[in-house]
Amino acid sequence: MRLNILTTGGTMEKVYREQTGKVENISSKVDRYLERLRVPDLEVTIERLMNKDSLEMSDNDRREILEAVRSMVASADAPVVITHGTDTMVETGLVLRKGLPRLGVPVILTGAMTPLGFEESDGLQNLTESLLAARLLPPGVYVVMHNQVFPIERVRKDRERSRFVLTS
Amino acid sequence: MRLNILTTGGTMEKVYREQTGKVENISSKVDRYLERLRVPDLEVTIERLMNKDSLEMSDNDRREILEAVRSMVASADAPVVITHGTDTMVETGLVLRKGLPRLGVPVILTGAMTPLGFEESDGLQNLTESLLAARLLPPGVYVVMHNQVFPIERVRKDRERSRFVLTS
Amino acid sequence: MRLNILTTGGTMEKVYREQTGKVENISSKVDRYLERLRVPDLEVTIERLMNKDSLEMSDNDRREILEAVRSMVASADAPVVITHGTDTMVETGLVLRKGLPRLGVPVILTGAMTPLGFEESDGLQNLTESLLAARLLPPGVYVVMHNQVFPIERVRKDRERSRFVLTS
Amino acid sequence: MRLNILTTGGTMEKVYREQTGKVENISSKVDRYLERLRVPDLEVTIERLMNKDSLEMSDNDRREILEAVRSMVASADAPVVITHGTDTMVETGLVLRKGLPRLGVPVILTGAMTPLGFEESDGLQNLTESLLAARLLPPGVYVVMHNQVFPIERVRKDRERSRFVLTS
Repeated sequence: MRLNILTTGGTMEKVYREQTGKVENISSKVDRYLERLRVPDLEVTIERLMNKDSLEMSDNDRREILEAVRSMVASADAPVVITHGTDTMVETGLVLRKGLPRLGVPVILTGAMTPLGFEESDGLQNLTESLLAARLLPPGVYVVMHNQVFPIERVRKDRERSRFVLTS
Repeated sequence: MRLNILTTGGTMEKVYREQTGKVENISSKVDRYLERLRVPDLEVTIERLMNKDSLEMSDNDRREILEAVRSMVASADAPVVITHGTDTMVETGLVLRKGLPRLGVPVILTGAMTPLGFEESDGLQNLTESLLAARLLPPGVYVVMHNQVFPIERVRKDRERSRFVLTS
Repeated sequence: MRLNILTTGGTMEKVYREQTGKVENISSKVDRYLERLRVPDLEVTIERLMNKDSLEMSDNDRREILEAVRSMVASADAPVVITHGTDTMVETGLVLRKGLPRLGVPVILTGAMTPLGFEESDGLQNLTESLLAARLLPPGVYVVMHNQVFPIERVRKDRERSRFVLTS
Repeated sequence: MRLNILTTGGTMEKVYREQTGKVENISSKVDRYLERLRVPDLEVTIERLMNKDSLEMSDNDRREILEAVRSMVASADAPVVITHGTDTMVETGLVLRKGLPRLGVPVILTGAMTPLGFEESDGLQNLTESLLAARLLPPGVYVVMHNQVFPIERVRKDRERSRFVLTS
């Protein structure tokens, strides 16, 4: 099966920078962690579109993501997994849903509360889940994290509890 | 959501024993690795039924597994994930399918090619995938490993390539 | 052999805080990582004195560290390993050297460029090295990191290269 | 500083082989783990001499090790770290001591009770310690493991407790 991964940054890709003592979006690391997974039946294409904290994403960035996904689903009838900061993940998802009304594949947004490779990170779990959800879900836009699957129009981040929850 | 995990041993649970220099099924370790996952909406019950290399499982062992699953799905209408050695995983799955013809939940068999916690282990990936598949799959008996989902009657282990494949 | 560990914070003990997206000195983690080492002949006592970024340490903090070490070496004739932020590690070490002119044991300052448990962390390496150096070095105050041992009066941090170097 | 590493196999280098379900000495992995350490002032040369369980080492193997070390210390006045199975580590060390009576550098034997990269492995700790001991110890042949340093003529393996102890 073919699958596209679009990386946009967020906590999942943050690295600890020794010179500043801060975690920053400097370089992509999804590839490195993807290599730790066994996906013998998956033909993955990764496109690194941007590397931003999602609080710093502009409307323009979201348009860029929309165009990237549009072109992915046009050329290949393959699911798309988007790694994204959790703070505005839902906002981007709603832009995708509105902009891609006749979507024929699942588009899955995922991310992490703690960067990939840091102790207690949820990044590899969420990536693993998203790659499986991409096989099993019907067409639509979703958030997949922490063993949960949310349709994009029914989810919000619960910042206090570091997780996503259903909107009522 | 409620979910039952039934552990039966297999490579996933093998530990390296320093006194013998061998990997052996001595003590369960699924619990320890489950704690590394974030499953805020999952109420997991783990039952450790046995801890065997699946090449050493007898017909009697399979009957025990069948009875354990039967009692789980009777008392709780919850999916079941079974950790199991890969060598006879399909055999056990077929016993379950035959013995539970009116199954109302997914029953997922998973395992590992390399024990949990060893470098390059696929154990945590397979466990993560199985817990998500338990939410998404319709009732039936499946093998879930390496980003793939197989109905039990259409799968076999490809020992050479350390993976499962569809039977034609 | 008895050995005292005094923790004061620094990068080694920083944790990633999900609510803020920053690395902070919130709770001690040296204990947890020490448990991963096999030290069958070592009787370790850990004292958590403070948990500060070393750029925020005051003269008063250094006096506190000096008093803690003084009392440790008075009551037990045992080496002392101090985990400390790297930015002012040498400053603290010089205070110790001046304040403890008749030291009968090695006092070793160590730390990390990347927090314990983050990918590519040097923390456990430096802790491991310090515990061995504590056995082998003669009395004095040292910095031990990255397979190097520096007498406190001949070392400075090279911030650009994320390491310590000999002063000429 | 220059340093030579001579790898001979042992538990430290065992890998889990999926086809057999056994741990075997197939390929060297010391290099890969060495890369995880920061040794900015160390110029390491690794020579992979053999890859054997030390219970299977013959007198001839030990002669080979002796000749390799002899040639290393002749050409470079640099310490030598030898990774070796623990079961006959002392035997090999005694051959080295006898065969190299005028040794001008420390020769350190180390190994592991659990293979590098397996959960709870002591391999990276022992490697880290040996590389530091190589800087600090006087000429002689030693076993360095688990935060302990043993002169070769005063050490034996305590198999029950998975450690080395002083002979009385």
